[in-house]
Amino acid sequence: MTARPRRREPQLLAFPVYRGVTPLDLVGPLTVLRNLTGTAYRTVVVGARTDPLPTDTALQVVPTATFADVPAPFALIVPGSGPATQAAMADEALVGYVRSAAATARLVGATGNGALILAAAGLLTGRRAAAHWAHAEQLEESGVTWARERWVEDGRFLTAAGGAAGIDAMLALLARLKSRSAAQLAQLFMEYDPEPPFGPLGPDRGDPELAALLRQPGRRTTHTDHPADRR
Amino acid sequence: MTARPRRREPQLLAFPVYRGVTPLDLVGPLTVLRNLTGTAYRTVVVGARTDPLPTDTALQVVPTATFADVPAPFALIVPGSGPATQAAMADEALVGYVRSAAATARLVGATGNGALILAAAGLLTGRRAAAHWAHAEQLEESGVTWARERWVEDGRFLTAAGGAAGIDAMLALLARLKSRSAAQLAQLFMEYDPEPPFGPLGPDRGDPELAALLRQPGRRTTHTDHPADRR
Repeated sequence: MTARPRRREPQLLAFPVYRGVTPLDLVGPLTVLRNLTGTAYRTVVVGARTDPLPTDTALQVVPTATFADVPAPFALIVPGSGPATQAAMADEALVGYVRSAAATARLVGATGNGALILAAAGLLTGRRAAAHWAHAEQLEESGVTWARERWVEDGRFLTAAGGAAGIDAMLALLARLKSRSAAQLAQLFMEYDPEPPFGPLGPDRGDPELAALLRQPGRRTTHTDHPADRR
Repeated sequence: MTARPRRREPQLLAFPVYRGVTPLDLVGPLTVLRNLTGTAYRTVVVGARTDPLPTDTALQVVPTATFADVPAPFALIVPGSGPATQAAMADEALVGYVRSAAATARLVGATGNGALILAAAGLLTGRRAAAHWAHAEQLEESGVTWARERWVEDGRFLTAAGGAAGIDAMLALLARLKSRSAAQLAQLFMEYDPEPPFGPLGPDRGDPELAALLRQPGRRTTHTDHPADRR
């Protein structure tokens, strides 16, 4: 058993990262949770080592602490990726950390398809979880009920769908850990008030052919493998 | 004069970064532009050096190339920050790079308050530009007309407002550089279809007191200095 931090010590919300992580799944939440300033809560990005890691964009990211530095965070929130999630699910250092940190964490979360990594650690069996819609089937195959929602809570598990959905989930979390007005200020400050040039699109709204194309068997793990990207 | 890349060589969209950069201003655009796969265009994150840089969140980022490596990109797109933008505007290596790369770039852009850095390089005088609403006054003081829009084009200058607005602007750019369906797929894949728990908020909609609080003199450059964050 690891001792809980005493009152007044920082309560850490740890975001474990790995090779190929999707930075939006990480950065949206971190941006919202900047507004925890003035509370006992603080975010930290953890990795097996503090070396630069490639992401699935042109950016590299660097954890500021190791898994060993943050053995018992208040919250553990796992960002997703595209194809790299499959390797992450088999990464013993990562999955072992997720399992042990989750054992004492008050809140266990995931964004994007990070729920697959929680499932690989055996944490979601029999639970409802949100995840990127393109990974719903794979999540269900691991004994989890996929929730067709932007984010969902089941006990101490808070899981979000892909990309921007992590922002929605973290706004709700910020409201709980600090205040509703703090969440509103965060939302306002990050101009989370979209005007996408081709209108709103979701797997269940907009052009259904677009979503269907992305869900072709064998292609569900990455949009960059999509035939439309090869033109 | 630097030679233009010949046809078939990658056409680079360079994102210069600096200490304290706001990662959402960078990661939103990079995520959209992943879908340039299959075209001659490619994103690259450049810095004075390829050392890790702190951001205004718990994340550190690492440029994968130096300014010297990418002297004449096809496009230059400058992400913003909070208070760190003021230091960036006085950073000669950064501003010098922005000025020289912009001289030959076909497209010069900014997200967040990155327009202030373009203005510091003397590039926006007399032009209309978008920028994070909290920095509108400062932008106007440098001889630029602030556009109250998510993003705006003026000649070869494409500027976006803060945070998520960079996503809107890059969806429009992706449609132009590749196709409208590529932009729709990117939007769908990143689940850019918000359901913020407290409804939509913008500087001109939602609770006007919230926006007014953030615009208090001397506080406009950072939300973390906001009194509501000190509770």
